[in-house]
Amino acid sequence: MSIEPLTDLSRLCIHTITTKPWGIEDAARHYSSAGVKGITVWRDALDGRNIRQTGEMLRNSGLSVVSLARGGFFPNTDAVKRQAALDDNRKAIDEAYELGTDKIVLVCGADPGLTLEESRKHIYEGISAIIPEATAAGVKLAIEPLHPMYADTRSAINTLSQANDMAEKLDSRAVGVAVDVYHLWWDPDLEKEIARCGRNNNLLAFHVCDWKSPTVDMLNDRGLMGEGCIPVKQIRGLVEASGFSGYNEVEIFSSIYWKTDQKEYLEKIVNAYLNHT
Amino acid sequence: MSIEPLTDLSRLCIHTITTKPWGIEDAARHYSSAGVKGITVWRDALDGRNIRQTGEMLRNSGLSVVSLARGGFFPNTDAVKRQAALDDNRKAIDEAYELGTDKIVLVCGADPGLTLEESRKHIYEGISAIIPEATAAGVKLAIEPLHPMYADTRSAINTLSQANDMAEKLDSRAVGVAVDVYHLWWDPDLEKEIARCGRNNNLLAFHVCDWKSPTVDMLNDRGLMGEGCIPVKQIRGLVEASGFSGYNEVEIFSSIYWKTDQKEYLEKIVNAYLNHT
Repeated sequence: MSIEPLTDLSRLCIHTITTKPWGIEDAARHYSSAGVKGITVWRDALDGRNIRQTGEMLRNSGLSVVSLARGGFFPNTDAVKRQAALDDNRKAIDEAYELGTDKIVLVCGADPGLTLEESRKHIYEGISAIIPEATAAGVKLAIEPLHPMYADTRSAINTLSQANDMAEKLDSRAVGVAVDVYHLWWDPDLEKEIARCGRNNNLLAFHVCDWKSPTVDMLNDRGLMGEGCIPVKQIRGLVEASGFSGYNEVEIFSSIYWKTDQKEYLEKIVNAYLNHT
Repeated sequence: MSIEPLTDLSRLCIHTITTKPWGIEDAARHYSSAGVKGITVWRDALDGRNIRQTGEMLRNSGLSVVSLARGGFFPNTDAVKRQAALDDNRKAIDEAYELGTDKIVLVCGADPGLTLEESRKHIYEGISAIIPEATAAGVKLAIEPLHPMYADTRSAINTLSQANDMAEKLDSRAVGVAVDVYHLWWDPDLEKEIARCGRNNNLLAFHVCDWKSPTVDMLNDRGLMGEGCIPVKQIRGLVEASGFSGYNEVEIFSSIYWKTDQKEYLEKIVNAYLNHT
């Protein structure tokens, strides 16, 4: 398989959480100056802002608003909280509509007080319940399978095969999947499952970063592309071979990088994007 | 599926690393007093001991020597080190023979400088190379799939499906698999794959502990059965339904428990075994 190198930033998107110390206004300004073309907005970045105006500000900065992160967290042993999660997902759909993006990434959730099967049932029913609102708002819901080390509390959907199964079973144009190399790189079925979601027009998003050796924190020690052992370029090749032509989204949680100068970090992101993605 | 409760300790085995602060002599004495019937010996516990005499000491304490942990770590970018790993695995086979156990647990290894496919090839070739010595010594090699969070450096075999595939392809009476709930509990194919290795007489070992929420360390924060979200009892039921009647091996890496009084900890292990396994 030959993989075209990335020679420009036309498909580079960055998640606001990647440069968490920056408010969204600073992020927009710096991303734009650096030539970045897309932004995925984490909901916390919208706190205290007028969402519609923030969307306009982003577009005026030359940024495409690729998606809103994140909906999900459907499973709950507590029926009241489970209902509240649905309401919050409907709120996220409204926010996505206001912001002017057509996609929400779903971190589906898991409750350690439920069996995985029960959590998966809550996820299925939760997504199913909000499809009408998503459809009405023109917003697609991307089921993101999370690494199995998050199966206790963050997601009971831990392989692309499971996400594909669920998206196909939900059978709605408003539902697809997100592929994040961090969560899926180890999976022996990855090639097959990427081809499958591409073939079914279910591949909505592609997230990149790297897995450092050693990884010292399960949540906030992700690496820049090229710093770890994930064959990011090869996985991008699989994603593109499946028909995907959307943004390559840089989503890095890193206590280490968050402590550094964010402008210098942004330069590193751009370099890692061009050389190791 | 009805699962018979565990009402005695006749199938309880403890790994020496579980009570790491104890030397193997203390471990043997205390396990035996507590009514534990099996011991899996980690190789570091044999340092400076005569191995044959240690095996006799264990049996004289009323303990069955269930297995030796651990062989493996086959993949290496460095050809000399890769050869050294084979020699070390042959040494482990000699040690198992001397100790008087018929089983070695394999933590197969991974090298972040190799692709996962290359690491898997090294594993296959490595096990293949030592089968003659294992057969001659009457020692079985149990391929233990490790949690995907260890795919960078500890094992490129991360699902029971992969371990089953490899054991079947190696097609030797000296090779089977080990099922550890910590590594596999999240896998949607677990029931099917446990049935598969049972059916093929490849299920050699069953390890238990629990996954705590939150887990604060990727290696040394395992919980006692009942402290986390793994359905240990249900998985034991699947293992037994597949025909397995061997030991339930308690293997817990825990910086927290290692700091506590090991005699009190042993009581907790016995209680967790009877009530949550």
